[in-house]
Amino acid sequence: MSSTVSPLAPKNVPDMPVIAGVRLATAEAGIRYKNRTDVLLAIMDKGTAVAGVFTKSKCPSAPVEWCRAKLKGGKARALVVNSGNANAFTGKTGRGSTALTAKIAAKAVGCSESEIFLASTGVIGEPLDATKFDGVLGRLAETAEAGDYLAAAKAIMTTDTFLKVATATVKLGKAKVTINGMAKGAGMIAPDMATMLSFIFTDAPIAPAALQALLKAGVEDTFNAVTIDGDTSTSDTLLAFATGAAAEHGAPKISRASDPRLKAFTKAFNQILANLSEQVARDGEGARKLVEITVEGAKTKASARKIAMSIANSPLVKTAIAGEDANWGRVVMAVGKAGEPADRDKLSIAFNGIRVAKSGARDPSYDEAQVSEAMKAPEIAIKVSLGLGKGRDRVLTCDLTKEYVAINGDYRS
Amino acid sequence: MSSTVSPLAPKNVPDMPVIAGVRLATAEAGIRYKNRTDVLLAIMDKGTAVAGVFTKSKCPSAPVEWCRAKLKGGKARALVVNSGNANAFTGKTGRGSTALTAKIAAKAVGCSESEIFLASTGVIGEPLDATKFDGVLGRLAETAEAGDYLAAAKAIMTTDTFLKVATATVKLGKAKVTINGMAKGAGMIAPDMATMLSFIFTDAPIAPAALQALLKAGVEDTFNAVTIDGDTSTSDTLLAFATGAAAEHGAPKISRASDPRLKAFTKAFNQILANLSEQVARDGEGARKLVEITVEGAKTKASARKIAMSIANSPLVKTAIAGEDANWGRVVMAVGKAGEPADRDKLSIAFNGIRVAKSGARDPSYDEAQVSEAMKAPEIAIKVSLGLGKGRDRVLTCDLTKEYVAINGDYRS
Repeated sequence: MSSTVSPLAPKNVPDMPVIAGVRLATAEAGIRYKNRTDVLLAIMDKGTAVAGVFTKSKCPSAPVEWCRAKLKGGKARALVVNSGNANAFTGKTGRGSTALTAKIAAKAVGCSESEIFLASTGVIGEPLDATKFDGVLGRLAETAEAGDYLAAAKAIMTTDTFLKVATATVKLGKAKVTINGMAKGAGMIAPDMATMLSFIFTDAPIAPAALQALLKAGVEDTFNAVTIDGDTSTSDTLLAFATGAAAEHGAPKISRASDPRLKAFTKAFNQILANLSEQVARDGEGARKLVEITVEGAKTKASARKIAMSIANSPLVKTAIAGEDANWGRVVMAVGKAGEPADRDKLSIAFNGIRVAKSGARDPSYDEAQVSEAMKAPEIAIKVSLGLGKGRDRVLTCDLTKEYVAINGDYRS
Repeated sequence: MSSTVSPLAPKNVPDMPVIAGVRLATAEAGIRYKNRTDVLLAIMDKGTAVAGVFTKSKCPSAPVEWCRAKLKGGKARALVVNSGNANAFTGKTGRGSTALTAKIAAKAVGCSESEIFLASTGVIGEPLDATKFDGVLGRLAETAEAGDYLAAAKAIMTTDTFLKVATATVKLGKAKVTINGMAKGAGMIAPDMATMLSFIFTDAPIAPAALQALLKAGVEDTFNAVTIDGDTSTSDTLLAFATGAAAEHGAPKISRASDPRLKAFTKAFNQILANLSEQVARDGEGARKLVEITVEGAKTKASARKIAMSIANSPLVKTAIAGEDANWGRVVMAVGKAGEPADRDKLSIAFNGIRVAKSGARDPSYDEAQVSEAMKAPEIAIKVSLGLGKGRDRVLTCDLTKEYVAINGDYRS
């Protein structure tokens, strides 16, 4: 948690309603930080469905392996999240820590260990002393309440400079259902997954398979379309929990993601994913500019995505934006290195709506003063038109500043 | 050209001998810089063989397209290099500039335009006014002499902080032949090619096809194994010229790269490529540490290369090294995101010979103070042992410092 809030932080934090069937509690377990909460326990009512998507790292953390295995049951009773230590690359000790944490949590909540979901974030390669949860989780289970989502979002932060939450209330059948989400970033963010940790809670009665399908589809253009530094965490975890409590008020039970009654819910769900993942980009380490990269006219959407990611991850593009320089030459470089079909002489590039390059050369109407003024904005939209086909995609990133280097060059000390 | 020389610069600049059949001259053409040379003309004797490898960018510069086309002839009479403007992404104007430059050079040298090779480095997206070469190239052709390679290497610099040359003298048959090389970096360096511009000259009598085969094989573990920021330039060009003048002293004419008489030459040639590409890494923008990454025990060499590059291009690994932090957790992250076969629990990692991680966890003998002391060295060797197979590879990179951001956030102003 930094003392300086990102200038790109949302102006307002929403009021977070209660989600029936979910209780939360946080504590200071002293994992690494002093004088701040670093453990979150979320307890869900019996019958809660769970879905999850995780890092594609070949070296995932112990909690990721734990969750992947438990996801098969489709049911969750509790989520334990700690910050300060990611329990990643900790060998057999790491597996022991997850097992012990789950055991302590299961006892505290009164459920099976296979219904416990775990996430850890922070330093990797350091053993996590799960005995620190002993006692703590028991007290949390006793005091858990229907809901301080802001406190929960705060407890899972690491280098984040602001807490990230989003909420939506929408009709499912004739009943009102609520979706709450939280996320933490802010470095080592790259698809896939894009954020280190994010959790969604809803009282909608959605079966595990349907929830999983919703989540998998929803991340594609949200969390998986965000990159901070191209570095994929070993711990990236996005879990969604559906308690089903709204069934009591008449919400229909949904067993398929394609159920037409789910339309409004799906839209709201995806908006929450989009909102949270944008907040992650807004809190990229050292970020001073939110950068939206749109690539259109590519051969396919996948090709557009690859080119957009090449631009988004280019240190030269990112430092140019930090320097408020509309250096479209570097954008061309990043298009060229993506390896996807591109015709230099058909390329057009615009920064914040001002076209700077056209047909493979500087736009004749290019006005450096006008563009320089536009580059001072905190949000920069780069649009690249390839002129080859109908493939289009959009990704979010941030600039690369000296502050990023400072944060990451001195993280452990 | 920076006023502060990289602390990683070689201590000594070698004396560069003359290459029979090559004459050089430099001038201030005022392309972009003031009060420094920015154009190099190298004139080669008739019959000089040429070979080249270029950027794999889908949006190459006009000079790259020019050279690729002319390479088919296999013969070169002159090389014109300018710094300050890369003539990249300049549309039809760019093609016009290369054609005009070649025309001026051909007239000055007295040869066919198809024997002129061109390279440009500097800002991209700005039209290059080739009329500035008019007169200049004529004067250079008149004054060209057998050899100031240091002045030549200086004229092609952009953000380089030191000039990069290498030389070797070796037996070919019973005759002595000489190889001289020069290169310029220092940002936007990534395979393939690794450097923006590099030129090799030799008096050995080697036919174009053999020279091309030598060059292609030689770059794989040298220039293509160096990355500064993962950004591939639109202009990367490596040309080799063999005048054949040593045939007069009895050097045998070589028509195949596999000719056993070429063994010593090949070794020296590859050493020059290795030397120059290492100098490029030593002059990475803002670099304070030279980083050698060795991956062993991978399934294949290609897999080892991909993992080594993932580590070398990770901003989190690079900033950790800038912070003198042996953050092997980030190395694990970079191994994991490479997508190549890796077993977390078999991984071992060493920094400068000190093993910090073993069998998927912190090495029991890990001594933070010892490792911290080792990380203060200007050269950092990271060795990753995967324990899966016999694939091994090595790449060079540098750290990511605030200075990199400063250099690239304010390049154009």
